[in-house]
Amino acid sequence: MRYRDAGVDKARAEAIKRDILEVARATWSAGVRPLPGGFAGVMELPAGRPGVLRLVAATMDGVGTKLHLALAAGRVEQAAADLVYHGANDLLVHGARPLAFLDYVAQSRLDAGVVASVVRGLARACREVRAALLGGETAEMPDTYLPGVIDVAGCMLGSVDPAMLLDGSATRPGDVLLGLGSSGLHTNGYALARRIVARSGLSLSDPLPGTRGSVADALLAPHRWYGPALEPQVAHGELHALAHVTGGGIGGNLARVLPPGVRAVVRGRAWERPAVFRWLIEAGDVPEEDARSTFNLGIGMIAVCAPERAADVAAALRAAGETVHTIGELEAGAAGVAWRD
Amino acid sequence: MRYRDAGVDKARAEAIKRDILEVARATWSAGVRPLPGGFAGVMELPAGRPGVLRLVAATMDGVGTKLHLALAAGRVEQAAADLVYHGANDLLVHGARPLAFLDYVAQSRLDAGVVASVVRGLARACREVRAALLGGETAEMPDTYLPGVIDVAGCMLGSVDPAMLLDGSATRPGDVLLGLGSSGLHTNGYALARRIVARSGLSLSDPLPGTRGSVADALLAPHRWYGPALEPQVAHGELHALAHVTGGGIGGNLARVLPPGVRAVVRGRAWERPAVFRWLIEAGDVPEEDARSTFNLGIGMIAVCAPERAADVAAALRAAGETVHTIGELEAGAAGVAWRD
Repeated sequence: MRYRDAGVDKARAEAIKRDILEVARATWSAGVRPLPGGFAGVMELPAGRPGVLRLVAATMDGVGTKLHLALAAGRVEQAAADLVYHGANDLLVHGARPLAFLDYVAQSRLDAGVVASVVRGLARACREVRAALLGGETAEMPDTYLPGVIDVAGCMLGSVDPAMLLDGSATRPGDVLLGLGSSGLHTNGYALARRIVARSGLSLSDPLPGTRGSVADALLAPHRWYGPALEPQVAHGELHALAHVTGGGIGGNLARVLPPGVRAVVRGRAWERPAVFRWLIEAGDVPEEDARSTFNLGIGMIAVCAPERAADVAAALRAAGETVHTIGELEAGAAGVAWRD
Repeated sequence: MRYRDAGVDKARAEAIKRDILEVARATWSAGVRPLPGGFAGVMELPAGRPGVLRLVAATMDGVGTKLHLALAAGRVEQAAADLVYHGANDLLVHGARPLAFLDYVAQSRLDAGVVASVVRGLARACREVRAALLGGETAEMPDTYLPGVIDVAGCMLGSVDPAMLLDGSATRPGDVLLGLGSSGLHTNGYALARRIVARSGLSLSDPLPGTRGSVADALLAPHRWYGPALEPQVAHGELHALAHVTGGGIGGNLARVLPPGVRAVVRGRAWERPAVFRWLIEAGDVPEEDARSTFNLGIGMIAVCAPERAADVAAALRAAGETVHTIGELEAGAAGVAWRD
């Protein structure tokens, strides 16, 4: 037996890596140290207060099956950008600001065009959240991935001054829940949404009933990045906690950040659910409980703040371009989230 | 149509996440801040010199198809640990020390036993390289992954004092190449190795000709972690550069860290190739050039140091448990790597 190839075209893989590096470098601030070899990315931590420890924050996420819809609709770049927004919002929950992003892109056989779209989307979003696209890995694994699809995961690094760290210690009964509007499904609920669309008979380019756009427009709307509105509120100490509404929905993610002895009341009629959710729930005949634990239902981030500060915080968030609803409050009681009308 | 499930059993997924968190927490040092919600992991940077900027280093890697062999041999835990060693060695190349690791584990359908093995392996290796298993994501994607397999990727974070940063600036003609022995294939060349094994008719439990162990023993030997031996040499400023021999082999990875106007001469007879590589090359009839660019051939890390320091450095590395071969030197010339007998 004579060996001919290892399943990977090395010249093609190298060309893909060179293209990625070029796009990534365009996101590098002066703090990124260019190093020969690039086995790891190295960058400066932003200067903190003199003598005060700087904390490093990090989170890992995948885009999930939103990528399938994005591939079918030719909008992979946007779906990749969503992964960056997702990670940056996760950091924000603990008061941290983005610093760098590293990606993992895998396919059965690397499609240079698709990979380039992914990296362009990541790089664009990195510039927006002010992170360097510091490194990444591409993997071609025909024995692991189904043909024609792609998986993208990524790690977002950030830093936080200990004085800004949101650790839930200030959260107490009486605090108000401010819900910030989402721009669509963000990055969760796609397994269910895709199934509903497939069974509805609608194609991605068909108009979505109740909206002005197509099914693709509604389902692939970008994951909103809340940093510009929320970072000043974090810096001014206005927030007791944040919950990024991802897998698990409003209740699941609120429950994650509540201290013992505090429970949340969510008033389900306090905001109007966007048309895309109303259509999904109706077309899929989705039970209310499942809809609540699967979709964000129009609320992408929840800010917890003192009742006497809620009006000012809401006004500042609105001035920064957010849609804000007072969606409930905290009360004393066994941990958990109760929905009320 | 009534919606019944979203393809993912949420209770099962939650149970898997709880188990992961418990294992991960066992790796947390006092510097990790426990936060409700855990949207991101947050930890202290180790104290640097007073007034000196601390640099953050990060790298992303996948295990690749070594996982397939590991699954077949029931040794997934070890293959997952290899991903941690791989990332830690990548940091070492630039003088950085591990701080935290975040993983991404994806399957068509999450197998709780396999995921638990992966996380145990990651956690064990994290303790060994002194990194906190700070976060991670599990994904269940039946439309993306082939059934029965798993993909694991991970991001290793570290920090480095700017004075220790290996940036290649000290590398010059005349420098000596010290090759540190590998323990096997480490994490590269598995697409080819698996093909050769499949065509050889040998099973994983058969003895590997020329060795005392089985095919599985030889192919799944752990990826060696060179930190204990090399970190003191980095700290003492003894090294001009390091090259971690991963995809691309000895030549490909040496070339990555050479400055312009410097080329490497690798003396292919300076060390004996381990039996596993001799067998793979013979059984697969692998051309010499391909073997060199695919396998590490017994050299897992290359240290570049001044000729007058080479004997002392080699002695110190041997005292720390490494096998060390003088495998070549640098000379003036167009960048590249030349193999000589």
